[in-house]
Amino acid sequence: MPDFIAAAEAAADVAGAVIRPLFRSRLLVEAKGDASPVTEADRGAEQAIRALLQERFPDHGLWGEEYGPERAAAEYLWVLDPIDGTRAFVTGRPLFGTLIALLRNGRPILGLIDQPALGERWLGVAGQPTRFRSPLGGAAGCRPCARLAEAELSCTSPDIFSPADRPGFERLRAAARRVTWGGDCYSYGLLALGLVDVVAESTMKPWDWAALVPVVEGAGGRVTSWDGEPLTLESDGRVLAVGDPALLPEAVRLLQG
Amino acid sequence: MPDFIAAAEAAADVAGAVIRPLFRSRLLVEAKGDASPVTEADRGAEQAIRALLQERFPDHGLWGEEYGPERAAAEYLWVLDPIDGTRAFVTGRPLFGTLIALLRNGRPILGLIDQPALGERWLGVAGQPTRFRSPLGGAAGCRPCARLAEAELSCTSPDIFSPADRPGFERLRAAARRVTWGGDCYSYGLLALGLVDVVAESTMKPWDWAALVPVVEGAGGRVTSWDGEPLTLESDGRVLAVGDPALLPEAVRLLQG
Repeated sequence: MPDFIAAAEAAADVAGAVIRPLFRSRLLVEAKGDASPVTEADRGAEQAIRALLQERFPDHGLWGEEYGPERAAAEYLWVLDPIDGTRAFVTGRPLFGTLIALLRNGRPILGLIDQPALGERWLGVAGQPTRFRSPLGGAAGCRPCARLAEAELSCTSPDIFSPADRPGFERLRAAARRVTWGGDCYSYGLLALGLVDVVAESTMKPWDWAALVPVVEGAGGRVTSWDGEPLTLESDGRVLAVGDPALLPEAVRLLQG
Repeated sequence: MPDFIAAAEAAADVAGAVIRPLFRSRLLVEAKGDASPVTEADRGAEQAIRALLQERFPDHGLWGEEYGPERAAAEYLWVLDPIDGTRAFVTGRPLFGTLIALLRNGRPILGLIDQPALGERWLGVAGQPTRFRSPLGGAAGCRPCARLAEAELSCTSPDIFSPADRPGFERLRAAARRVTWGGDCYSYGLLALGLVDVVAESTMKPWDWAALVPVVEGAGGRVTSWDGEPLTLESDGRVLAVGDPALLPEAVRLLQG
């Protein structure tokens, strides 16, 4: 495991070196929201991560948002999203993240969330307490919050839900204390710091959620499907995270209706 | 004017010193979204700002969110919001801001947006180019964007609109390229960096918008009511900001319906 952790950290470092110069750059301002410079950063970062991991672990599989799967049936599979939160990146908000996960036989055993503009990093390893470093403060550890009526809910956007998923989210939202919009992976990071209590989203791909599982669970929380089951590569993209596991039954009941 | 600028900067410094220690603090985690520690930071910061300004300019008026108006009929009136974006602050997102504006005979002549956790500051002075400093990069200056179909729209939350204002916003949103949620004052700061093109919100108080006007206008943009008129202390709280003034007529037409 120490080799895997060192590789994940090194991979996040090289990705950050590719991504940081483009953040708020002239190129991005001139692109006016056009995706091409972001795609370029996304691809450059994924290539850098893949090259590093492939050299260190030639037998491992790789699966990234930009370049798809390679040896996906391997025992160890790295699942990557170089820039999670493209819209935050494009509009200059430092709340996007680089996501790096390692799955063993389909289960996430390591997850890393990196915010390269701020120099913040969450590292989760199955069975170990989540580590967090940031110049802005904050400490890893979910907070107790046994009642949804007291829970801070977070969600990237009301637009991410399919029509079928929207009513479930609205029931959860009505029961929560309040909702804050925006955030992508960053909201799950804040949940792992005890600042957010629930996140519910849908249409998520494995590279969107795989790294979040060890980070949140190593901080005492839970990440599941909307059925309350562990996420797998076959899951339907509906993701629920709670800081206090006591929230899980009620949240699942409301999401399912 | 140099004395006013120096005072605004000093006031933002003292407010930051009050606010920073509470950001992501144990106290805030334990409060679980309860407003009291934030209110305390808000009040402490406003008291610090008021004391500083009152000492330097005993004849000036003061109007803050927490402590209300004092000598509001004075020629010079400072309008303050120590923590704009309370929900961002409470959930650990470094996108809240301290807002300090100076109005002369009801018109904003100086505006400052400060992000104390990140060390970012926007300073706008009527008739001067907006200044911006940040360890994250970015440069003051709105970008050209003559067509709404190419515009990045930003808005704090779909929940801030009254039922009467919602249809106007939805028309604008349908015409824009896309919308990013979240941000409070930070979205207007991003507009002044050429990373966002339009912001439309309602139910805003003078302390929410006064500082934004010189910042955005000094970067080449415009801040108006939903009628396209300059904002005044009697305005109805519906605020529209555009980076490219060419967007204004179409945005106003859509908001008004």
